Amino acid sequence: MTATTPVLRADGRRPDELRPVTITRRFLEAGEGSVLVEFGGTKVLCVASFTEGVPRWRKGSGEGWVTAEYAMLPRATSSRSDRESIKGRVGGRTHEISRLVGRSLRAIIDVAQLGENTIVLDCDVLQADGGTRTAAITGAYVALADAVAWATEKRLVPKGRTVLKDSVAAVSVGIIDGVPMLDLPYVEDVRAETDMNVVVTGSGTFVEVQGTAEHAPFDRRELDVLLDLAVAGTDRLAQIQAAVLAAPPADGSATRVTLP
Amino acid sequence: MTATTPVLRADGRRPDELRPVTITRRFLEAGEGSVLVEFGGTKVLCVASFTEGVPRWRKGSGEGWVTAEYAMLPRATSSRSDRESIKGRVGGRTHEISRLVGRSLRAIIDVAQLGENTIVLDCDVLQADGGTRTAAITGAYVALADAVAWATEKRLVPKGRTVLKDSVAAVSVGIIDGVPMLDLPYVEDVRAETDMNVVVTGSGTFVEVQGTAEHAPFDRRELDVLLDLAVAGTDRLAQIQAAVLAAPPADGSATRVTLP
Amino acid sequence: MTATTPVLRADGRRPDELRPVTITRRFLEAGEGSVLVEFGGTKVLCVASFTEGVPRWRKGSGEGWVTAEYAMLPRATSSRSDRESIKGRVGGRTHEISRLVGRSLRAIIDVAQLGENTIVLDCDVLQADGGTRTAAITGAYVALADAVAWATEKRLVPKGRTVLKDSVAAVSVGIIDGVPMLDLPYVEDVRAETDMNVVVTGSGTFVEVQGTAEHAPFDRRELDVLLDLAVAGTDRLAQIQAAVLAAPPADGSATRVTLP
Amino acid sequence: MTATTPVLRADGRRPDELRPVTITRRFLEAGEGSVLVEFGGTKVLCVASFTEGVPRWRKGSGEGWVTAEYAMLPRATSSRSDRESIKGRVGGRTHEISRLVGRSLRAIIDVAQLGENTIVLDCDVLQADGGTRTAAITGAYVALADAVAWATEKRLVPKGRTVLKDSVAAVSVGIIDGVPMLDLPYVEDVRAETDMNVVVTGSGTFVEVQGTAEHAPFDRRELDVLLDLAVAGTDRLAQIQAAVLAAPPADGSATRVTLP
Amino acid sequence: MTATTPVLRADGRRPDELRPVTITRRFLEAGEGSVLVEFGGTKVLCVASFTEGVPRWRKGSGEGWVTAEYAMLPRATSSRSDRESIKGRVGGRTHEISRLVGRSLRAIIDVAQLGENTIVLDCDVLQADGGTRTAAITGAYVALADAVAWATEKRLVPKGRTVLKDSVAAVSVGIIDGVPMLDLPYVEDVRAETDMNVVVTGSGTFVEVQGTAEHAPFDRRELDVLLDLAVAGTDRLAQIQAAVLAAPPADGSATRVTLP
Amino acid sequence: MTATTPVLRADGRRPDELRPVTITRRFLEAGEGSVLVEFGGTKVLCVASFTEGVPRWRKGSGEGWVTAEYAMLPRATSSRSDRESIKGRVGGRTHEISRLVGRSLRAIIDVAQLGENTIVLDCDVLQADGGTRTAAITGAYVALADAVAWATEKRLVPKGRTVLKDSVAAVSVGIIDGVPMLDLPYVEDVRAETDMNVVVTGSGTFVEVQGTAEHAPFDRRELDVLLDLAVAGTDRLAQIQAAVLAAPPADGSATRVTLP
Repeated sequence: MTATTPVLRADGRRPDELRPVTITRRFLEAGEGSVLVEFGGTKVLCVASFTEGVPRWRKGSGEGWVTAEYAMLPRATSSRSDRESIKGRVGGRTHEISRLVGRSLRAIIDVAQLGENTIVLDCDVLQADGGTRTAAITGAYVALADAVAWATEKRLVPKGRTVLKDSVAAVSVGIIDGVPMLDLPYVEDVRAETDMNVVVTGSGTFVEVQGTAEHAPFDRRELDVLLDLAVAGTDRLAQIQAAVLAAPPADGSATRVTLP
Repeated sequence: MTATTPVLRADGRRPDELRPVTITRRFLEAGEGSVLVEFGGTKVLCVASFTEGVPRWRKGSGEGWVTAEYAMLPRATSSRSDRESIKGRVGGRTHEISRLVGRSLRAIIDVAQLGENTIVLDCDVLQADGGTRTAAITGAYVALADAVAWATEKRLVPKGRTVLKDSVAAVSVGIIDGVPMLDLPYVEDVRAETDMNVVVTGSGTFVEVQGTAEHAPFDRRELDVLLDLAVAGTDRLAQIQAAVLAAPPADGSATRVTLP
Repeated sequence: MTATTPVLRADGRRPDELRPVTITRRFLEAGEGSVLVEFGGTKVLCVASFTEGVPRWRKGSGEGWVTAEYAMLPRATSSRSDRESIKGRVGGRTHEISRLVGRSLRAIIDVAQLGENTIVLDCDVLQADGGTRTAAITGAYVALADAVAWATEKRLVPKGRTVLKDSVAAVSVGIIDGVPMLDLPYVEDVRAETDMNVVVTGSGTFVEVQGTAEHAPFDRRELDVLLDLAVAGTDRLAQIQAAVLAAPPADGSATRVTLP
Repeated sequence: MTATTPVLRADGRRPDELRPVTITRRFLEAGEGSVLVEFGGTKVLCVASFTEGVPRWRKGSGEGWVTAEYAMLPRATSSRSDRESIKGRVGGRTHEISRLVGRSLRAIIDVAQLGENTIVLDCDVLQADGGTRTAAITGAYVALADAVAWATEKRLVPKGRTVLKDSVAAVSVGIIDGVPMLDLPYVEDVRAETDMNVVVTGSGTFVEVQGTAEHAPFDRRELDVLLDLAVAGTDRLAQIQAAVLAAPPADGSATRVTLP
Repeated sequence: MTATTPVLRADGRRPDELRPVTITRRFLEAGEGSVLVEFGGTKVLCVASFTEGVPRWRKGSGEGWVTAEYAMLPRATSSRSDRESIKGRVGGRTHEISRLVGRSLRAIIDVAQLGENTIVLDCDVLQADGGTRTAAITGAYVALADAVAWATEKRLVPKGRTVLKDSVAAVSVGIIDGVPMLDLPYVEDVRAETDMNVVVTGSGTFVEVQGTAEHAPFDRRELDVLLDLAVAGTDRLAQIQAAVLAAPPADGSATRVTLP
Repeated sequence: MTATTPVLRADGRRPDELRPVTITRRFLEAGEGSVLVEFGGTKVLCVASFTEGVPRWRKGSGEGWVTAEYAMLPRATSSRSDRESIKGRVGGRTHEISRLVGRSLRAIIDVAQLGENTIVLDCDVLQADGGTRTAAITGAYVALADAVAWATEKRLVPKGRTVLKDSVAAVSVGIIDGVPMLDLPYVEDVRAETDMNVVVTGSGTFVEVQGTAEHAPFDRRELDVLLDLAVAGTDRLAQIQAAVLAAPPADGSATRVTLP
């Protein structure tokens, strides 16, 4: 790769470019926050449910709880998968991503300020084209912010509390044919030698770094380049999140922000 | 109820009026047919998946198979429900509706003309406000028609075959405070003395009649009035289905028809 | 079909004739009511279990609860089926019929008069030859009546309360080779173009009407003829129920009524 | 206990006496053998299903397979139990008894003579009053013998083969208040210090000896007395089995033998 | 078999000889008692967990509860088995052995002296070479004794109480080629005509006698010889148990006793 | 932290020091490779099972398959956990770690050189004191190497093939009270602000980097320090692995290497 032969990806993007990102806030009437987030062809519906009270093991702690459940519709992918409800068990990948989304949100929530309340984030993938877990985290943050605002409005959380300490967004990065790239769609994801999901706060610190050598172990220099790409990507996602949250609809209808 | 004191419903409809119905065709890129159907606040995503071959028990019959799976997202309702995948078992209501949707579609498919191919219809309720099973059947028909067209285009079904013998749509009717009403939203559904789901072909014959006395048994005359209402309603739904299928997009983007 | 060439069925019945129906009351010593009901070769054991108290979600309502569970023994049918306990999940058909039986009984019970007590009806099919769900409802009513009488006797329900508002019975009807027929055995059931299960109170009003076009959609006139047949059939079943309940055994042994 | 003060049990039996035993052969039309066996208030329906072929792991061995499944209806006992199908798992006790019944029958079957055929014995307890496993084994043998005769008749097993090497029956024994007793009903079973189930062939050899100290360990002398009682009991059961099998019905209707 | 041609087993033992038995006490730091018990190549890790309180159904009784769970690691056997956690259900054999171990321990515990406390014994088979259930019982007793001592030390059980009424051990016996043998390894177990597991207290009385005719029913004389062998074997096991318990380590490290 | 006040950990280690590591090779006779690995109080049994053939989806590819299953015994931890086999489902954490171990081993295996053979690694935690997943990976590599050697010896893999491209080991690192530390036991793990598991090949490249902000997001500098610590730790683990593999026992008995 030299300056004279720039790498172009199948969808025409430069290596350090995000796919078009769209966040539609208040996609549904149900849910204290509901967001349809799109990273290119990946579409995830993120719905926040606020309930008073906490699970039994947390009662009396004065602290709240935030958790997440991730799932895929059967035909989110190019060929249909069996439903986990019909198989009677939740797969390892589903569990793993649900836990990741929950941890990522808890990193920027102040559970003491939330009080003994629970917020569940349901992230259901309507269409999968790579990066479903990073889109889920990015969209879930917006739904979570709306749910916290709703609860404050309803006086379920006292006014003046800073429940959200920061924002959080996530993006995937990977090395394909030796070139580090940002925000991989499915066709790139399967070819990546190394694949990394990075969860970053709005202030630029790391919440999760999950790098996996899919085909070839990677060295320290490659890791550094990937982290640089990821931090630049999550920085732009944080801007989109802020933009969509800054534009409250006057009439309860949906707000939609697309970038670039 | 007399001509001088017309019954008006909470949402301003007359007793024999449908809610606003919207069918968005090609809602997703995935799926051989994908439809978002809305009956008022009820929103169901119906996706058809076509695969060559049939289940083992049907092999060598020369006939195809059509089946359906219905499910609800956790926050489709006003309070969040646990996921069936996490409970590890599919509930009775889910099973029952999945079977109803499958039977309704098989009533208008000529499985011999389909050949040894399988079409699965996934009907996932994004938001529930009454009538989810009737919306699912109505939307699934459009997705099925698109999948059959796709397979004919791809020569997986020979040209010239009449795979679809008819169209099919469904609607709910019920008696509330003694007044028969069409297309019940959730607030009416819970108050109905009698609740009936009726599945009708485009040519006006019955596929399913499922009437249940929720609070009080009903007599023959009431049954007759409800059937009249239902047939009028499905007749209008058949018109919307025909309209959305008559307007193929030139460029693969979504088509949307709303009525009234 | 003309008067000169009467239709005769494989078992010699006329189209509007029930199979021999036998109800054996107090078939077991266990259970507050226990009935073996036979519609021809179909044999269902219906046992009512009365317990004080109600499920948690109903506590404090002052109202009781009636529910039912339907199941088949593995060799109830001509070839053996796997047990649902071993498969680890209850099938859709089982769920659906359990719910139907429960709803049918709740339609004639006054839950306020029952007080905070629960009655569970277990309907286990020992031998299946068509019409197992209709036999189950018909037999379960007799077991339920015995359980209510037992509870009144034991003062668990105060004397003078009218817990049972009516009786309830059910029968199947269908169209075979264009001829509407009553109470289908298995060989007829699989051939029926249209199949309907009708649940009717002793006073002749409908509790459930479930008509399904198995092979060909049906029109309004056919629906009307089937309903006429069904109401005549349930009327005779109500007579048998009344007869068996009118003959209390002096000594705790079984009472058996067969008709015709 | 002396000769002058004979021990009498609650039901009036002597310690070495069986409860009334009834075996009704051909209780159902379904099943290649079907038996209702009663040991006092214990009633078990035993149905044999014959199928050609064997499980995969036995294919090509030239040998057949006999297995059993034991289960209880929910209200077989004095208070209702949850169904294992609804709990989604088969309990340890159910598994254990199913395995015992299967082993007991395999001990007297010559699988080589049976050829590559499978016989499944379903033993469903309609009413439980102690000794359900021993009644199940005793009844299952008669159903098995009928299934073997049926298969021989149908030429699925060549004539002249001795598939059944012997008969098999089972009985419970226990020590109550220091007195060894035969065939314990529920009220005795819960009080027994030691409880033993013994499975014995028609020729008097042991297939299973399962003795358990429920409340107090037992010594060698007590063990000997219990074995004597059990062998006398199974000897009488073998006579009843032989009697009911010796009286084939001319017309396919049920045969019933009661003893004493 | 004559005096001049003594039977020697594949591993060089005489028919009435145990395999080398090793009991390592305090194998882990976790657990109120933890034992690695080895019968030849069979290795079972037995860990006792003491918790204050009892299951709900036993609350207020003043009595404690002892239960056991037996399981096998996937590669305990010569070919790998699937995990029961992944199959989603516990097999019949596992259930049966867990129940046997629990009953055996409860036979020698005085639950009234234990008070409302629970002890769970986990018996996990690391390597299986026959006799895993008998090794589990024998090792579990030592872990149980350590847990009782620990609880007495911690004053969770008042000093001076005799919680353990006796010791308990178990061994397998069987008839191979007509010769009764003690403590069967896997290669003998599969060849045994008759297989018996016998659980015996330290004072020589029986807790469980489970004899099964694997290939040929056995007679009373054979049963007697097997019981003699078993009682001699458990007598030696009781000596080893006593020896390992008599040698408390000064410093918390493991104690190991091997015999012979 | 300055040079004059060195940080000492509860167990006396310096921040950059591993706990005592012991690898016992051939811990069991069963398994083509079996290793007991100990990182301080953490003890994991790693057993490799080699079988000819591959899962169906890989047949005909010419390539082999390596997978892993991680699990914990109920009393591996300080208080007893319920068995996943009894809960009927495998938890999210178990799934996640099983997948991590499998991926880590596949990174250093050349599946083409392995041929169509499968190796399953079972990693069962006998005692857990932090770092169970990193100990599992480190021990599983040794068991895997033994299984590959066994298969080469048996000619199931042709001689001269380089099935193992590298070695692999793993270690945890974390920040506690602002101090980066290596190889966290349980008491440190629960207090860590940031926790990272790093999987590194013998040649020093990364296979997995999984960093999680448990309590506070971390910055790039902290990430760099943690990675330095981890690479130094895995380098020492690779030395121990090499040492234990270099000392093959002449007689099939166990080999044990401890460091430091």
